[in-house]
Amino acid sequence: MTDMTARTTADTKTDAADAADDAGSVSARIPGSGPGEGHEAAEILASARTQVDPELRRAIDSLPGSLRRIALYHFGWEHADGTPASGNAGKAIRPALVLTAVRALGGEPAAAVRAAAAVELVHNFTLLHDDVMDRDTTRRHRPTAWTVFGEAGAILTGDALQALAQRLVAEDPHPGAPAAAARLTACVVELCAGQLADSALEARSPDEVTLEECLAMAEAKTGALLGCACALGAVYAGAGEEEADALDGFGREAGLAFQLIDDVIGIWGDPSRTGKPAGADLAARKKSLPVVAALASGTPAAAELAELYGRSKDDGARGADRTGIGKTGIGKTGIETAGGTGEFAVRAARAVECAGGRDWAQVHAADRMSKAVGQLAGAVPDPESAGGLLALAEFVTRRTY
Amino acid sequence: MTDMTARTTADTKTDAADAADDAGSVSARIPGSGPGEGHEAAEILASARTQVDPELRRAIDSLPGSLRRIALYHFGWEHADGTPASGNAGKAIRPALVLTAVRALGGEPAAAVRAAAAVELVHNFTLLHDDVMDRDTTRRHRPTAWTVFGEAGAILTGDALQALAQRLVAEDPHPGAPAAAARLTACVVELCAGQLADSALEARSPDEVTLEECLAMAEAKTGALLGCACALGAVYAGAGEEEADALDGFGREAGLAFQLIDDVIGIWGDPSRTGKPAGADLAARKKSLPVVAALASGTPAAAELAELYGRSKDDGARGADRTGIGKTGIGKTGIETAGGTGEFAVRAARAVECAGGRDWAQVHAADRMSKAVGQLAGAVPDPESAGGLLALAEFVTRRTY
Repeated sequence: MTDMTARTTADTKTDAADAADDAGSVSARIPGSGPGEGHEAAEILASARTQVDPELRRAIDSLPGSLRRIALYHFGWEHADGTPASGNAGKAIRPALVLTAVRALGGEPAAAVRAAAAVELVHNFTLLHDDVMDRDTTRRHRPTAWTVFGEAGAILTGDALQALAQRLVAEDPHPGAPAAAARLTACVVELCAGQLADSALEARSPDEVTLEECLAMAEAKTGALLGCACALGAVYAGAGEEEADALDGFGREAGLAFQLIDDVIGIWGDPSRTGKPAGADLAARKKSLPVVAALASGTPAAAELAELYGRSKDDGARGADRTGIGKTGIGKTGIETAGGTGEFAVRAARAVECAGGRDWAQVHAADRMSKAVGQLAGAVPDPESAGGLLALAEFVTRRTY
Repeated sequence: MTDMTARTTADTKTDAADAADDAGSVSARIPGSGPGEGHEAAEILASARTQVDPELRRAIDSLPGSLRRIALYHFGWEHADGTPASGNAGKAIRPALVLTAVRALGGEPAAAVRAAAAVELVHNFTLLHDDVMDRDTTRRHRPTAWTVFGEAGAILTGDALQALAQRLVAEDPHPGAPAAAARLTACVVELCAGQLADSALEARSPDEVTLEECLAMAEAKTGALLGCACALGAVYAGAGEEEADALDGFGREAGLAFQLIDDVIGIWGDPSRTGKPAGADLAARKKSLPVVAALASGTPAAAELAELYGRSKDDGARGADRTGIGKTGIGKTGIETAGGTGEFAVRAARAVECAGGRDWAQVHAADRMSKAVGQLAGAVPDPESAGGLLALAEFVTRRTY
């Protein structure tokens, strides 16, 4: 029982930052409401990957052999045995935001490729470290680096990737590089604080966690780097502090919307589309935003949810096995039709919904997207120029589930 | 038994980099051969600490609360409960090397305080991470940060300290800062490779480890940052690449000498002076340089040492308990007069000595120091100008045991 629960928890990525990075094909994530929708985002992402990969690869090839091998594995360019792999380094959303922001502000994206690669290196350094801390065993559909090369290997490769990121910007002769370096280091500190807050929140009892704390944590952990990517684009386009701050705000607000939608998908998403076991976030007692909003609602459903979350995880797993619901499915939602977590997750998901957690998350996500659009319009009034950034923001937040 | 062995291993710092950082009073480490010897080094170190601490403190105070608290604890400025502590942040050898190298090349040390603080931040970021990887429980006579604040706290605070280090140099308007930033990031990558090599070497069987590998690992892990500190001083004094490389070489060679002497002390040092349990490096089957040199000697003593190192650590601990030698002491050396590891360590130490490991290490350390002096003389021909750097190098390598 314990093993099963542990595996379910560890295998599941619940952060939007990770989901955005997840390596399903781009087309699989395009909303289904129209055949052309998402097409622009898909093209931007593919182009960013093509532009940034040679710079990324060059940086990683500069590492000493032992660290290089782990980095090449993490980025999907090598198998664990060191043989070449086709590459599966995520969807390049952050580099795409850098390059698209440069273009939106009238700059030359090709001049910002180093900065875009630096942001991707920072993102991957945090993924390597987060996987160690969270004991996650799967990343981009492969075993995480620490499970293959050991904790020390993953921690040290992460450290080296941070150094490479800082070096790419420090050695860039572009006039925007010094301001970019300052923003990037400030962002790393914020990412670290966000991950530490996440660890601390997960260790606390649900009734000791406020929605404000969870939103602040999500902003630091997910919003900060998406905001920094956009701000770096502004800086490389020669924009002033104010425009860069507005683009940072755009990325942050879109990042929050993204996290909210990802949390909803983490509870009600269809496992065949999300690639996650249904209800795993709930089974792991994850304090995702809809759950914390539900707990704070003061409704009878909130009390039921608090009681459910107070039970030990073993009880939940045993419940699932006893009823067999996890295997057979009983109906309507993803939780009920896919295997693994069973009655506990069904009851918890219903309680979150009855307490208004699902509605709150969707309304709040829309509100954040509206704020993002407002920030963008302030910095980039011409809708045509802003189109690429909007397409990316919609791509990451309007996922199907 | 297992617990005792594990504790002995985990409590013991065996790297010279750590020993140089250890927080005993400066005077306790001054060689006893003359009352004035070491006085210059002690003054340089105290002055460096005074100059660098405000910059370090300012950088750490810029961190968000959760990370700041862990950093303040790690640097000895706060107790675990957040109340102020008197400060015990190590001996500041690396910042002292930066500032003393600036002075040796005719520059203004006060202008290099940010670079000196950056080097100290890099050093401390690696200590935080190494303690997690090595499961070390004591640092500067206090529980390590990860034992107090958890693994995630220590990893993330280390990540943030690296970012702060890079930021200090990136934001420094000094004309030497860009070259310093490039050297610092290259050094971080080398430190990571060195620590990874150390982990890999310790996991391998002694007969699969060559002396060349161990020397290369020690150079990357211990020599690189001491070399980088000296090179940054040269860069901040306006010196060219060649002089900076020579000072890097000086620091590296002195660092290797330092590591060799520290390894000798780790086997034959007097526990009352070293603060380490006698023979703990041997009990932990540490592949220190004298041990690997002894194993490679082809002597009968090498064969005996290989046989001893092939035994499980539990056997060693049981042996100590059975004979009681660890508790009562039987004679001549530190290993025999202090408690803990017993007959195993006595036999292993004698085998290392008979196989020539102790002599080799001392001769090789002297050779490295001679190379260090040669590198220094090339860059700083005036003996008076070179005096401060020489005093520091002698201070860290001529420790009593």
